[in-house]
Amino acid sequence: MGHGPYPSIGSGGGVNPQVQQWFRAVDKDQSGFITAAELKAALVNAQGQTFSETACNLMLGMFDKDRTGHINVEEFEKLYTYINQWLAVFKTYDTDQSGNIEEKELTNALAQMGFRFTPDFISFLVKRSDPKEGKVSVDSFIVLCVQIQRFTEAFRARDTQQNGTVTIGFEDFLNVALSCSI
Amino acid sequence: MGHGPYPSIGSGGGVNPQVQQWFRAVDKDQSGFITAAELKAALVNAQGQTFSETACNLMLGMFDKDRTGHINVEEFEKLYTYINQWLAVFKTYDTDQSGNIEEKELTNALAQMGFRFTPDFISFLVKRSDPKEGKVSVDSFIVLCVQIQRFTEAFRARDTQQNGTVTIGFEDFLNVALSCSI
Repeated sequence: MGHGPYPSIGSGGGVNPQVQQWFRAVDKDQSGFITAAELKAALVNAQGQTFSETACNLMLGMFDKDRTGHINVEEFEKLYTYINQWLAVFKTYDTDQSGNIEEKELTNALAQMGFRFTPDFISFLVKRSDPKEGKVSVDSFIVLCVQIQRFTEAFRARDTQQNGTVTIGFEDFLNVALSCSI
Repeated sequence: MGHGPYPSIGSGGGVNPQVQQWFRAVDKDQSGFITAAELKAALVNAQGQTFSETACNLMLGMFDKDRTGHINVEEFEKLYTYINQWLAVFKTYDTDQSGNIEEKELTNALAQMGFRFTPDFISFLVKRSDPKEGKVSVDSFIVLCVQIQRFTEAFRARDTQQNGTVTIGFEDFLNVALSCSI
């Protein structure tokens, strides 16, 4: 206890050993903390690309409660669980098990989540994720779902009459858009 | 003519030689095209960091008209001019020449661009760019300005009564937010 590069090893006693092992592998500079860049280097999607900077910043930011730009092993454990939950969700919607979500699969996924979007809009979402092949990778899927979740909350909070429309001024509009989009 | 790794060297005859030199330096794999990743590796802000993936994707996307994910030397020349224009704008607002734009400087910059935002909102914009030190780097500044420009256009198009508010449904709201934020 108290020796080695991990000052949190004592308090990290409650952390799952497998998670601790992952943490050490991802923490390339052995600083005892994981940055978004270290996370990015460790996560690869089915297209063989590392996760996007956007996805890594988004996910790290969710668990980096003290805003230091890095997470310790306890925060990492929560992130690890979070990512695994998303992977499980992704797999249930990736019905052809291609490792990507195509337009038809995204249509089903969003419908099951309770969204009724027009086909044109879903097509736009897919092209936004992958203009070339129209495949939504797991990291893009996580970013997309988190964005839609956040927008939905922000919209609902303003849709006081619950009629599906809001009346909004420019600054608030910009505020919502920039806060939710990351 | 016609030899070497640059198939476009003939048609690139009109390209400024300095730009051609830059292009070769940035095109690390000598493919004759520049990707967002190559662009990222070549551009460094005053904080000593490479430009963000978001900034590189945004800028490359503007000039990659055929959506191939890379740009040729003629497209690069336009991008080169575009980046230099932003650098010049950035310098005029970076009044203390720190290489970053601080909150007070951003307040002046946005006011000069014709925006009237509340101090809280400007504070939010700065923290969004750099939660730790509140400094807006040149790449974050470019992303922010392009986003604000796009949102302004989208908002104006919907503000039919020109009274500074719009009434908007959920899908259109999400569409605007996701299209403009990149």
